[in-house]
Amino acid sequence: MKLCRYGAPGEEKPGLIDADGNLRDLSPHVPDIAGNALSDEGLARLRGIDVNSLSIVQTKPRFGPCVGGTRKFMCIGLNYSDHAAETGADIPENPILFMKAISAIVGPNDDVVMPRGSTHTDWEVELGVVIGKPCKYVSEEDALDYVAGYCTINDVSERHFQAKISGQWTKGKSCDTFGPTGPWLVTRDEIEDVQNLDMWLDVNGKRMQTGNTNTMIFTVAQIISHLSQLFTLEPGDVISTGTPPGVGMGIKPEPVYLKEGDVMELEIAGLGKQRQTVKADA
Amino acid sequence: MKLCRYGAPGEEKPGLIDADGNLRDLSPHVPDIAGNALSDEGLARLRGIDVNSLSIVQTKPRFGPCVGGTRKFMCIGLNYSDHAAETGADIPENPILFMKAISAIVGPNDDVVMPRGSTHTDWEVELGVVIGKPCKYVSEEDALDYVAGYCTINDVSERHFQAKISGQWTKGKSCDTFGPTGPWLVTRDEIEDVQNLDMWLDVNGKRMQTGNTNTMIFTVAQIISHLSQLFTLEPGDVISTGTPPGVGMGIKPEPVYLKEGDVMELEIAGLGKQRQTVKADA
Repeated sequence: MKLCRYGAPGEEKPGLIDADGNLRDLSPHVPDIAGNALSDEGLARLRGIDVNSLSIVQTKPRFGPCVGGTRKFMCIGLNYSDHAAETGADIPENPILFMKAISAIVGPNDDVVMPRGSTHTDWEVELGVVIGKPCKYVSEEDALDYVAGYCTINDVSERHFQAKISGQWTKGKSCDTFGPTGPWLVTRDEIEDVQNLDMWLDVNGKRMQTGNTNTMIFTVAQIISHLSQLFTLEPGDVISTGTPPGVGMGIKPEPVYLKEGDVMELEIAGLGKQRQTVKADA
Repeated sequence: MKLCRYGAPGEEKPGLIDADGNLRDLSPHVPDIAGNALSDEGLARLRGIDVNSLSIVQTKPRFGPCVGGTRKFMCIGLNYSDHAAETGADIPENPILFMKAISAIVGPNDDVVMPRGSTHTDWEVELGVVIGKPCKYVSEEDALDYVAGYCTINDVSERHFQAKISGQWTKGKSCDTFGPTGPWLVTRDEIEDVQNLDMWLDVNGKRMQTGNTNTMIFTVAQIISHLSQLFTLEPGDVISTGTPPGVGMGIKPEPVYLKEGDVMELEIAGLGKQRQTVKADA
């Protein structure tokens, strides 16, 4: 299933994209794409609904973030071997974790707003993993059983805030609007091999990032297993699993950063496309 | 006012501690100590209630975390000049920020459970700041207007997870139960000078930490102003503002870490006392 949330910010309704690409209203069946709805039982219940019984949404509403009730927005750093090579960084021993504030989460096509004083805002297309049920101390073998589904994420990053104003990466990762998530939560049964998904990101129509999840240093299963040794992963928690080469910071001879009016477009195969316009806070 | 939340985990009811130390039930007046109840108007409404009209809770219930609906649990590192001296670290240019998972938040007297494999779990008594209304780009002068109140926090930390298994500090800070918060949210009007509060922490009855918020490198107002340049602080968000000297990691000649059965007791003047027993996950 392709699940989604649509409507005004904070008032999103649950929806489903049918085989013909129609948006259908799920709100008579589930309050939100969140919590128990993400469990195996919750997803099975949705799968049991006759799609044709769901009314088609005839307007073109905004897509919200594809999952609600997120309590942890975890990001894995330097997780693509080709991106690590680009930055000259060593291969880490375990997945590198940092947190993004959940207040950064927005819809896939909402504006990305650079905070006051930002001159180093950058893009990162990433595979998002949405947790479906509580998960602690799980093995790599069992880890994917805890996934509700996958989505596209832009892990927008202010490089100066991230590295130059004291503190850890989270400062440059947590700005409002820096976490476009969606458009769809694609349930895990529809993804044949999560470690073989093409991804790309364009800025103003120019291809900047091209990658495939097959160059991840740590697989999705390894990441989930590792994090679950540290704390409980909860339904609706999101893991953004790192970015392939081609970020603005890595461009030679001079890095390139976003400016007001730029347009980012990005997609992961099967998970849907995002499009954001860049604004700047005065 | 001293506000609190009491009852079983996840089912806490709002309460108030009266001038005689009685716990009184606030649930007829407010659904939770969270969200709008933390705004100036929300707190004024609670202040307007005749305390004697509130029924006294005759049992001795568990205290939960003193605030609900927290979406960001922010921590400031190395924020006491005497602690920075102890660790030999340089004074940072701005407040050092890292995030603690909100799934780490527990009540003030709940067990602290060391995760599997933990051998370096440590204590940190800290002043907690609870945000009362949305806050962005605020000046240092106005910053304290956005505070609902203050509380005691134990920023429990696994030093090996924090620094030695790849990734940022958040790994060692986010373990389940690593964020005892409360017992009370003391509204800001009751704290004459937040930069002059005594604090201490004992392990098994032995004094380990002694400090006062007057040695903070960055004041509460400076921290709020700085963070609000990065992202929106929301009602119920918590900032843990750093720890004074005396953590286990800093003990000479050999660091001392927690072990199963240890008891931590800690207090900040006027904000109430915590007591946790240490357990270990098998």
